[in-house]
Amino acid sequence: MRSLWFEKGALHLIDQTKLPFEFKVYKARTARDVIFCIKEMVVRGAPAIGCAAAYGYALGRLQGERLPYERLLGTRPTAYDLRFSLDNMVSAEGRQEDLLEAAGAYTEAIVEKCRRIGQAGAHLIKPGRTVLTHCNAGALATVDWGTALAPMRVAHRSGVRFLVLVDETRPRLQGAYLTAWELSNEGIAIRLIADNAAGHYMSRGLVDLVIVGADRVCRNGDIANKIGTYEKAVVAKEAGVPFYVAAPISTVDLSLGTGGQIPIEERPADEVLFVRGRRVTCKGITAGNPAFDVTPARYITGLITEFDILRPKDIKGLKSRPFNPA
Amino acid sequence: MRSLWFEKGALHLIDQTKLPFEFKVYKARTARDVIFCIKEMVVRGAPAIGCAAAYGYALGRLQGERLPYERLLGTRPTAYDLRFSLDNMVSAEGRQEDLLEAAGAYTEAIVEKCRRIGQAGAHLIKPGRTVLTHCNAGALATVDWGTALAPMRVAHRSGVRFLVLVDETRPRLQGAYLTAWELSNEGIAIRLIADNAAGHYMSRGLVDLVIVGADRVCRNGDIANKIGTYEKAVVAKEAGVPFYVAAPISTVDLSLGTGGQIPIEERPADEVLFVRGRRVTCKGITAGNPAFDVTPARYITGLITEFDILRPKDIKGLKSRPFNPA
Repeated sequence: MRSLWFEKGALHLIDQTKLPFEFKVYKARTARDVIFCIKEMVVRGAPAIGCAAAYGYALGRLQGERLPYERLLGTRPTAYDLRFSLDNMVSAEGRQEDLLEAAGAYTEAIVEKCRRIGQAGAHLIKPGRTVLTHCNAGALATVDWGTALAPMRVAHRSGVRFLVLVDETRPRLQGAYLTAWELSNEGIAIRLIADNAAGHYMSRGLVDLVIVGADRVCRNGDIANKIGTYEKAVVAKEAGVPFYVAAPISTVDLSLGTGGQIPIEERPADEVLFVRGRRVTCKGITAGNPAFDVTPARYITGLITEFDILRPKDIKGLKSRPFNPA
Repeated sequence: MRSLWFEKGALHLIDQTKLPFEFKVYKARTARDVIFCIKEMVVRGAPAIGCAAAYGYALGRLQGERLPYERLLGTRPTAYDLRFSLDNMVSAEGRQEDLLEAAGAYTEAIVEKCRRIGQAGAHLIKPGRTVLTHCNAGALATVDWGTALAPMRVAHRSGVRFLVLVDETRPRLQGAYLTAWELSNEGIAIRLIADNAAGHYMSRGLVDLVIVGADRVCRNGDIANKIGTYEKAVVAKEAGVPFYVAAPISTVDLSLGTGGQIPIEERPADEVLFVRGRRVTCKGITAGNPAFDVTPARYITGLITEFDILRPKDIKGLKSRPFNPA
C-alpha cells in the first residue's frame, strides 16, 4: 500500500485528514484538485508533497491550466521537496519527456531513496532499545517506507524487536493519527505519549535514540521539521541521546545558508483551538500556530540519507545537481 | 471568587474537570468526598490540594472516619503541599484547636502567601513583554491569586500591559481549559499555543520570561512540576530566556536532597488516548502518561516565594519549621 498512486487518469491519495478513523482515497483529476489536497493536507509530508506536486504539474500542463508551477509552489512554504520536484518537472518538459511518466519516475525514485534511507539507518536500532519519533515521517509522508520510519521498518523486517515512543504531535496529531497507525499496522511495538513527556523519558535514560524527518535542510546542516522538533533536539542533546534526521538529499536547499532563512508556515488557529471538532478552550481565545520550527545543526548527531549517514557539516560539500531518478 | 470555600458544613469546590465548558460547584461533605475530588482532579494544583486535604482531614476527624490522614495522603503522590497540610492539621489537633478553623486558617495563609508571591514577582513583568506559562498555577490551583499567575495579576492590576503565551498542556489541557479561562477573565492578553510551539517562540526571541508553578521543591533546588516543564526549562536556558518557578515555601520538601527522589505519578492512559471524550488514535494503542517531570536547579533562574525571589541554591539554607499562618 502506497500513500499515493496514479491510475485511470487520476492521482489517488489516501486521505490523511481522515486517518485513522476512516480509510478514504481521494481522486485528484486536475492540478486544482492536487492543489486542494496539498493545502488541506489530504497529502502531507515533504517527499509525498513533492510527488503529488509532480503529478499536479503533469495534469495541469496536459489540461492547459494556467500557471500550474506557481500555483502548486504557493500551496505550502516550508517543505523544499515541493520546489525541487516542480523544477525537475520543468526540466523533464524541456527534454520533451512524457510528463506523467516523469512524475511516475520521480515518485519511484523517492520510494527507492526512502528504502535506501532505511538500509542506511537500520543498524542504529539495536534489539530491545527504545526509539522516539515526532510527527509522521512514514510511508504516508513519503509514498512508501518513510524517512524517519524507514530504518525502523528495515530493522523490524530483519527481526530486530524494539519499542517506539510516538509523540502525539499537537496540534494536528500526526503522531497519534498517522504514525501510531502505520507502525502498529507493521507490527512494531509502540507507546503513544504527550509531546510534553518526551523530555521526561529522555532525562530518565528511557530513550536510546531519536529519529525525525525534515522538511528542509540548509547548507550549514540546520533543518526545519514539524513544530516541536527543536525542543526534542535540545533536550536530546542535554540528556545525551543521539538525535538523527532522516531525509533524502532532495530535501537539501543549497541556496539557504542557515535555518533562520527558512520560511515558517503559520497555519489556522482552529488547529489549536479544536481537536476532532471539539473546542478545547473558551470562546474568544486566539492561538498561535507555527507549523514548523528550525533545529540548528549543533543538535543533530547525523543525517540519514539515501547515500549514508552524513554529519551536518558534510551538507555544505554537496554539489547542486539535477535530479537523478536512478 | 475562590476555587474552594467552606460553607454550611460542606467544602465547596469549583469543579475543574468541567471548566471552561461548564461552571459547577462540587459540595464535599465528607473526607471520602474530598478524597474523590483530589483523585479525580475536581480540585488540582499543589496548594489547592493542600487546602482541600486540610478540610478533608477536619471533616474526617469530626465524622469519626478511620485513617483520614493516610487516605488523604494516598490520593496523589507528587505534590508536597498535601503532606505539609496534613501534618499541620495533626499539629493543630495536638494543640486541641478547632479543626475546621485550622483548615480555614491554613487556607487563608495560602491565599496570603500567593498574594505575596505576586508582589515579589510582579516587577519581573515589564510593559509590552511576553511571558510564557505552562499548565495552570493560577487561582484555581491555589484557592486565590495563584503562584505562577500571581505576579501577572499584580502587574496587570497595577496597569502593566503584557502578553501571556499559554501552553495548552497536554494531556489534560490545563493551560487551554483553566489558564486561558482565568487570565481572560482577568482581562490579561493571552495567546494559546501547542506545547510544541514554546521552543520555537523562545528560539526566535519572542518570549521574555517563563513563569511556572511547582508541586515539590527539593533541598538542592530541583523542582517537580507538570509534565513538559523540564523541556521548557531546558529550552529556555538554551535560548537565554529567564525561567522562574513560583511556589510558597510549603512546597519545599527539605527531606529530599534531589529531584530524582520525587515520586512521579503515572496517570491513566486514557488521558492521552482521548480528548474531550473523543479518541485521538487507533484502537489497541497503549500510552505512557507521567503527570510530572523534574526540572534540575541549574535551569531555574529564581524561585518566586512569599518572602522574595530566592536562588535555587538558597533552598538548602531554609530551616524546617512549623506552619505559620501569620
